[in-house]
Amino acid sequence: MIREISSGEFGLLWPIFKEVVGNGDTYSYPPEITEEQACALWTTPPTRCFVLEHDGEVVGGYMLRPNQPGLSDHVANAGYMVARQWRGRGFASRMCEHSLTVAREAGFLAMQFNFVVSTNETAVRLWEKHGFAVVGRVPKAFRHAEIGPVDALVMHRSLD
Amino acid sequence: MIREISSGEFGLLWPIFKEVVGNGDTYSYPPEITEEQACALWTTPPTRCFVLEHDGEVVGGYMLRPNQPGLSDHVANAGYMVARQWRGRGFASRMCEHSLTVAREAGFLAMQFNFVVSTNETAVRLWEKHGFAVVGRVPKAFRHAEIGPVDALVMHRSLD
Repeated sequence: MIREISSGEFGLLWPIFKEVVGNGDTYSYPPEITEEQACALWTTPPTRCFVLEHDGEVVGGYMLRPNQPGLSDHVANAGYMVARQWRGRGFASRMCEHSLTVAREAGFLAMQFNFVVSTNETAVRLWEKHGFAVVGRVPKAFRHAEIGPVDALVMHRSLD
Repeated sequence: MIREISSGEFGLLWPIFKEVVGNGDTYSYPPEITEEQACALWTTPPTRCFVLEHDGEVVGGYMLRPNQPGLSDHVANAGYMVARQWRGRGFASRMCEHSLTVAREAGFLAMQFNFVVSTNETAVRLWEKHGFAVVGRVPKAFRHAEIGPVDALVMHRSLD
């Protein structure tokens, strides 16, 4: 089950957020980010936050927002996180499908990921399976905790 | 002369900011943005704001900031504006050079523009002249006030 949460419920997602960001291999958020900062980033309108529950436990979540304000606010942006022990079960895929539906319902015409770490091949393949194409590649934009500087990809799909 | 300003001096740049954004052809900021919102976007640390003065008059300005926080904060982002009546005199070029120097001094290793409107050919040529390359192209990401949906370019250069 996937449902939208308020800022007051962000604590449900925080342990996963902290784990994912702490790994330093997929998100550029500072690994030392606080719960308050993370909550503000993922729940302050117009950003919306959703969690995926499996057997009554939150195993992942995502945020959806306009990628830019104003004259580009027809393009959505989203970010997904799944707890390490729950990976490989299709939860990211289900959240991606859910976010595409929510984005369409909200009137967005496209979705863009600004910063897919190029070494995160599982994610790149997954987003491609869901209709996204790589439309940009920024050299050495991410300092991967283990590998060092690696490229970041811009991925995009239309919601027509 | 180019100099850094504080948030308290943003009023010097606001008439130009308002004019540029109001045209709806180069920036995605909402054309109805207020001075307070614009000031926050261009002067709240770590964002830094600079103005270019010509004969004692502010004719343009730019902002410089980390493009992303955390593990990507070695990549700078900048945005430049020149008053309409002062275009074509090389002021954008001078601000770009200045920003590259400031960015290097601040320790940035690269600079990225996330959203160069593809129909703004003067800007694209200018940034290419200053060492930037197009590394991404997002289809129809900008609703141009006159032309309608047009592509946005991601441009990048190393500061090595």
